[in-house]
Amino acid sequence: MKERGLLIVLSGPSGVGKGTVRQAIFSQEDTKFEYSISVTTRSPREGEVNGVDYFFKTREEFEQMIADNKLLEWAEYVGNYYGTPVDYVEQTLQDGKDVFLEIEVQGALQVRNAFPEGLFIFLAPPSLSELKNRIVTRGTETDALIENRMKAAKAEIEMMDAYDYVVENDNVETACDKIKAIVLAEHLKRERVAPRYKKMLEVE
Amino acid sequence: MKERGLLIVLSGPSGVGKGTVRQAIFSQEDTKFEYSISVTTRSPREGEVNGVDYFFKTREEFEQMIADNKLLEWAEYVGNYYGTPVDYVEQTLQDGKDVFLEIEVQGALQVRNAFPEGLFIFLAPPSLSELKNRIVTRGTETDALIENRMKAAKAEIEMMDAYDYVVENDNVETACDKIKAIVLAEHLKRERVAPRYKKMLEVE
Repeated sequence: MKERGLLIVLSGPSGVGKGTVRQAIFSQEDTKFEYSISVTTRSPREGEVNGVDYFFKTREEFEQMIADNKLLEWAEYVGNYYGTPVDYVEQTLQDGKDVFLEIEVQGALQVRNAFPEGLFIFLAPPSLSELKNRIVTRGTETDALIENRMKAAKAEIEMMDAYDYVVENDNVETACDKIKAIVLAEHLKRERVAPRYKKMLEVE
Repeated sequence: MKERGLLIVLSGPSGVGKGTVRQAIFSQEDTKFEYSISVTTRSPREGEVNGVDYFFKTREEFEQMIADNKLLEWAEYVGNYYGTPVDYVEQTLQDGKDVFLEIEVQGALQVRNAFPEGLFIFLAPPSLSELKNRIVTRGTETDALIENRMKAAKAEIEMMDAYDYVVENDNVETACDKIKAIVLAEHLKRERVAPRYKKMLEVE
């Protein structure tokens, strides 16, 4: 039996650059994660291949998947459904491969319920760290603007609580390196490694 | 107040190459760990500087440190005492620096009692993984030899239980990369990062 893969969930506030970081990770040759292919009801764009870019479904099929609990998480955007098929994720993990999901915060919370053992990484906006400077140098911005930003920042920081790790997206390359370090470290945890050695000795 | 540093403890069975890996890590320019300077009763060798290579002490001074609980761990080898001074480690952690300890398994267990929040990394001999092959290809080695190796392997695997991570020393450079990934990931844990953000917002 193969060692089960890791479920890696990258999420964070909208506009933080999740997609850019995900693309950068998958453009690196040494990346061994499997990208989780989403299910969608939107029409394929030119060049998009079913089962590669997306699993394309009708609304009826998608709603049946919802009813059958076949989606790890799903949402509706501008009239189309998008979701993560649980069977694909489960099968890939069983094959011993790490699955990489890049999703919205609401979706991540749904995934956390189904896969609490997943690796939940919060991508934080660099503006969070800059906030202090902006507050200190008040006067360059209006009070209302700063107050809005403070409210948003508080909401973003509260979101973090559901995650295992926080990576600031101040630089795409650095963010990728950090995400890969997190996944590597997770594979080296004693709870994962020791049973492998113990199993080895049973060969006797 | 600075964020407290991490205590990194690298240990493993004797002969596994802990010293080589430690030297390789500290020869890398981007390494930001502070090496924990040991206390010893042995005489300084040519070129060794007190407070840099070791803290050199008399036997009486060392025994006083033991009595005063000033040592995180200590042992006696070929007539000389060696130990880790708790004040130096504590002060360096408080300064926000990561402290790196490379010690024997017995010492690591002592440190774990005093600093359970430390990062305990077990360096595993690559021979452990080769064991399976050696058992499968029996005949090339005597049964007694294999049995001895099996016993040693079982003891080594049991040692792992006190550690957080296991890194196989199949290649010094890879082992260094893994250790650094573990430390980086640890710094990105939400429990460490979120309070920093929360503190930032208190500036209001």
